[in-house]
Amino acid sequence: MDSTIPASARIPVIFDTDPGIDDALALALLARHPRFELLAVTTTFGNAPVETTTRNARGLTALYRQDIPVAAGAAGPLLDKRRRKDAAHVHGDDGLGGMAAGLPAPTRPLDPRPAHRLICDLVDARPGEITLVAVGPFTNLALALAHDPSIAGKVRRVIVMGGAFGLKGHAGNVTPVAEANIMADPEAADQVFTAPWPVTIVGLDVTQEAIMREADLAKLRGRGDGAGDLLWQATRHYQQFYDARDGIGGIYAHDASAAALLLVPEAFTLRAGPVRVALEGIATGQTIQDWRNEHGSGTPWSGHPSQQVCVAVDAPRVLALFDEIF
Amino acid sequence: MDSTIPASARIPVIFDTDPGIDDALALALLARHPRFELLAVTTTFGNAPVETTTRNARGLTALYRQDIPVAAGAAGPLLDKRRRKDAAHVHGDDGLGGMAAGLPAPTRPLDPRPAHRLICDLVDARPGEITLVAVGPFTNLALALAHDPSIAGKVRRVIVMGGAFGLKGHAGNVTPVAEANIMADPEAADQVFTAPWPVTIVGLDVTQEAIMREADLAKLRGRGDGAGDLLWQATRHYQQFYDARDGIGGIYAHDASAAALLLVPEAFTLRAGPVRVALEGIATGQTIQDWRNEHGSGTPWSGHPSQQVCVAVDAPRVLALFDEIF
Repeated sequence: MDSTIPASARIPVIFDTDPGIDDALALALLARHPRFELLAVTTTFGNAPVETTTRNARGLTALYRQDIPVAAGAAGPLLDKRRRKDAAHVHGDDGLGGMAAGLPAPTRPLDPRPAHRLICDLVDARPGEITLVAVGPFTNLALALAHDPSIAGKVRRVIVMGGAFGLKGHAGNVTPVAEANIMADPEAADQVFTAPWPVTIVGLDVTQEAIMREADLAKLRGRGDGAGDLLWQATRHYQQFYDARDGIGGIYAHDASAAALLLVPEAFTLRAGPVRVALEGIATGQTIQDWRNEHGSGTPWSGHPSQQVCVAVDAPRVLALFDEIF
Repeated sequence: MDSTIPASARIPVIFDTDPGIDDALALALLARHPRFELLAVTTTFGNAPVETTTRNARGLTALYRQDIPVAAGAAGPLLDKRRRKDAAHVHGDDGLGGMAAGLPAPTRPLDPRPAHRLICDLVDARPGEITLVAVGPFTNLALALAHDPSIAGKVRRVIVMGGAFGLKGHAGNVTPVAEANIMADPEAADQVFTAPWPVTIVGLDVTQEAIMREADLAKLRGRGDGAGDLLWQATRHYQQFYDARDGIGGIYAHDASAAALLLVPEAFTLRAGPVRVALEGIATGQTIQDWRNEHGSGTPWSGHPSQQVCVAVDAPRVLALFDEIF
């Protein structure tokens, strides 16, 4: 804990994640930036099977010197019929671009509770205080709402990385309209977006504007007692994928953008309106916000809470945050 | 017929339409611009019931001094379960902003054939030559394909006004993602876009950039032996709707943009890729183009013909065409 930051200015966070290379970068921010009070990490299937993401989450919390609970969550989506493709081509078989073997041993046992129970317990203990940052499929959050609907009123806010709203030509990354976290469990995402808690959605429209170039990533080397070196190595695999697909000479800071929103909110432009997820047909997994509210009542959006969607980002402000850790 | 334009440079067109105020403007271009050889008008439900749009189409062809066949088409969508809202709030109860009573009497009887049969007969008689310009629900085109699938290979090209691809913040106009012509018969639209003929789609992304201001419309007055005055009067109702909704001080030249594409193709930027229509759930009626083709085979877009979607327009070039008629 950084003693120069008063406790009242710290942001208590639970991180729900499927590490995942960009998850590891986001966790670095959440664990090492002095403004965050990271309470726990909960894991989900997504970038790799949940056994893999749980092992990675435990190793990463040790790497970042966080003696906090890690709880394992959903192994698959709410509805069994949903099947997602493996993301090994993006994150590697071990979810960390081949670097998982280099992680330190966990410093404490796995929390015995399923992820959604740990979330409910922590939120219950500090009502109105805790922010959930979720960057994988949203199954754990949906399970938490199902287990105890009252937590919606006790969570301070929910920040999710997921979705695509078609801005600036940024469409889906697993179908022309669907983003991977949503497509992995569309029903869970729809439940999370329509629950009575304040959700801010950081989708591909902004995360694909937040490009960490190879030179930015190289600056991590030699920092953080080995953490920076591991992140640099892990991102080699990730960058290879994006360079081949989009030729960006770097990586998209997808998940880190969700954490960054809490630190530099002024770097993000938000748009208000209810958000639903398409659950059927060729648009399945698409996030659709009714931000103009001009189609009257009785629509699929009517009566649902207005949520915030990020529509623009000052990317350099986000990337500069990595200079403040390690 | 303008004798200064050689016959070889004329564009033979069948106009499938649901007049409709902006349809009347499009028909003015197709009927009175010397580059077009307007062969027939076919009608459909849409902006008003098909009885109304057929009466309007007959009166408008007389107003524009076109002695050509008019055939009545579909009274509703392919599937009965689809029901669309009335558009009387946009186009008036008579489909022409209260001006239908001012139309001249038709100069020839209604063609006895249903619209789709007239389309097939004309296309068969001049294979490879005829362009279909369709600016209502696409039911007649789907019925023509069903009646004789071989016409797909005999039509020169198909230009449609419909759809919305989410560019520049232009989303749907009847749901957050669906445009009215598509929503009125999504199955028909999907069949038309996946048929083996070349389709160019002029959607809201460009038609909402083509704004005819009140001053542009006023220039029509006193021209065309009464036609210009009728269009000016009819657009008063239409402008009132758009001024109240969008405050644009004019109207969108939706349907005229489809006709304009044939005259000034250099004013439009196109994007290639298969286009499908969402047929289920909250995204029903959305047009989705797979223009990046990066999601592999076995998707709903795989194996379907690449079509062209308009993604940008030089609007002044389109609007200037109205100075060349009457």
